[in-house]
Amino acid sequence: MTHSSRVLLSRSLLCLVFLAFTEVALAKSSDPLPSWNSGPTKTAIVQFVTGVTKKGGLDFVPPAERIATFDNDGTLWSEQPIAQLIFALDRVKAEAPKHPEWQDTEPFKSVLVDDMKGLMASGEHGLVELIMASHAGMTTEEFEKIVKDWLGTAKHPKYNRPYTELVYQPMLELLNYLRANGFKTYVVSGGGIEFMRTWMEKVYGIPPEQVIGSSIKTKFELRDGKPVLLRLPEIDFNDDKDGKPVAIQKFIGRRPIAAFGNSDGDWQMLQWTAAGGGPRFELIVHHTDAEREVAYDRNSTIGHLDKALDDAGQKGWTVVDMKKDWKKVFPFEK
Amino acid sequence: MTHSSRVLLSRSLLCLVFLAFTEVALAKSSDPLPSWNSGPTKTAIVQFVTGVTKKGGLDFVPPAERIATFDNDGTLWSEQPIAQLIFALDRVKAEAPKHPEWQDTEPFKSVLVDDMKGLMASGEHGLVELIMASHAGMTTEEFEKIVKDWLGTAKHPKYNRPYTELVYQPMLELLNYLRANGFKTYVVSGGGIEFMRTWMEKVYGIPPEQVIGSSIKTKFELRDGKPVLLRLPEIDFNDDKDGKPVAIQKFIGRRPIAAFGNSDGDWQMLQWTAAGGGPRFELIVHHTDAEREVAYDRNSTIGHLDKALDDAGQKGWTVVDMKKDWKKVFPFEK
Repeated sequence: MTHSSRVLLSRSLLCLVFLAFTEVALAKSSDPLPSWNSGPTKTAIVQFVTGVTKKGGLDFVPPAERIATFDNDGTLWSEQPIAQLIFALDRVKAEAPKHPEWQDTEPFKSVLVDDMKGLMASGEHGLVELIMASHAGMTTEEFEKIVKDWLGTAKHPKYNRPYTELVYQPMLELLNYLRANGFKTYVVSGGGIEFMRTWMEKVYGIPPEQVIGSSIKTKFELRDGKPVLLRLPEIDFNDDKDGKPVAIQKFIGRRPIAAFGNSDGDWQMLQWTAAGGGPRFELIVHHTDAEREVAYDRNSTIGHLDKALDDAGQKGWTVVDMKKDWKKVFPFEK
Repeated sequence: MTHSSRVLLSRSLLCLVFLAFTEVALAKSSDPLPSWNSGPTKTAIVQFVTGVTKKGGLDFVPPAERIATFDNDGTLWSEQPIAQLIFALDRVKAEAPKHPEWQDTEPFKSVLVDDMKGLMASGEHGLVELIMASHAGMTTEEFEKIVKDWLGTAKHPKYNRPYTELVYQPMLELLNYLRANGFKTYVVSGGGIEFMRTWMEKVYGIPPEQVIGSSIKTKFELRDGKPVLLRLPEIDFNDDKDGKPVAIQKFIGRRPIAAFGNSDGDWQMLQWTAAGGGPRFELIVHHTDAEREVAYDRNSTIGHLDKALDDAGQKGWTVVDMKKDWKKVFPFEK
């Protein structure tokens, strides 16, 4: 080999290496969903978003109508256990010294001795009492502080991390991807609206006015001349099942073009979304990963997924297989 | 005068004329509130907006927190008569052939013979019956069409124009000015939320998700397999007086930094806004112009303004004198 041909070869090699590096870097930087494995699920998401944003295309949807609604528990963050229930239990324990009568009254008695079976035996009535005792009787500002303080110290029993770290990395990427494409992302959850608003802007980039949830009533009053909103021990709205389309219409006043859920509690929201005209996208997060998270569906009390899963199969809704479709479940995984 | 000095003079004159024109043009194009007369009211608005948008300034407020809430009836459009009441009366007349029993039942009997005294005599109960008969019993989509059809034909009795033209030109400019400065503008009105959503995006540039109002309950159901939301004859929420801060917290989850109203129905919203920390702006539209519109305040049933006007004086809230502060009331004025 002559000197000049050696130079040529080494230059070509350098060039190839450079090109290869660039390609990898480009592929990495241009993939808005890096934690999603390639396959039909990821393709379906990208195709939908590409279609509705393509100007002049048949499926184009104006930005103002690009509304996407997300369930929270089990769809955006882990729901085993339900963080807000743990919050309620912790609150009752913290407040117990002020309520000696709780020692002999259900459901508090069971809560104070960590008897979950006793709590469950108190039924829906007991659960409502627990929620009211822990969520009502203070102003909205006081409640916000209580929730923030709790979130700052409470840890998930399995992962030993704050609950706000138990969010799904692929779903965070999906939220960002949709917003980068002109979507307005909403949470529509059975969880407490004021409980969720304390952390969702920071964790999901979803501002309070785009968080919809269950609520108790509040009352405006003047305290020493200062206006406050007092949280009352009375249910205002249960944002679950057929409550979700009702809440979507009330709060947003437009039908979503995309909806994301994980249980039969989201079934009506998915139906409502699917029934609109034009391009639609419905997605169910199916908890199939017993190793990295928890595997559950038709036989689970929490996140019961049965009818919506059947419907997904019949109607061609997208079903995420967490084990197969997600490279990563939580952001803290390596 | 020499030839050269004549040339110089004419050039200078031309230059002056040019400058003068430019200044007028600039002043016009740079005034975001051209229908507001100069004076303390306009100055107060501009000073507030300038303060909260000045980066590094003491009063700077991040865009996400720039929430402004507006009452509608009497604040953004004329409330004499109340358009939605006329809609209800027209609906009852249109539906009467299907309801022979209305001929002998109040409040319908009075409505059908245009007896307003008879209608008023039926009291709040009669009014609620009238609202339910005209606003419930159909799906949300059917109701939207009914309202749009009505707005397309109904005319204001005095101005003989569609009600959606009876909006205040200075307030349209104010909405645009605030939005151009990063504010999110909301309507918080006692009017029906779905009634208002049909036209506010087009007329005010306020999308459905930023329209908050009174509501009746709705119910999700499947009709021949198609999901619908049925409007029920049951009050869900009365978005007036102390209901306004409650609704603001429920729908927005943030306290406004600016609020705009015209009656005691807005008093609690103004108080709630004023009680927050940092820069605040509260404004009352005072109906002082009997010639271009209607003059009314303390003794009026519609748009009763008494306690809030006293409070405005004591707390330094801005009060718009419509006659003095507004060059134009309606967009169609010359």
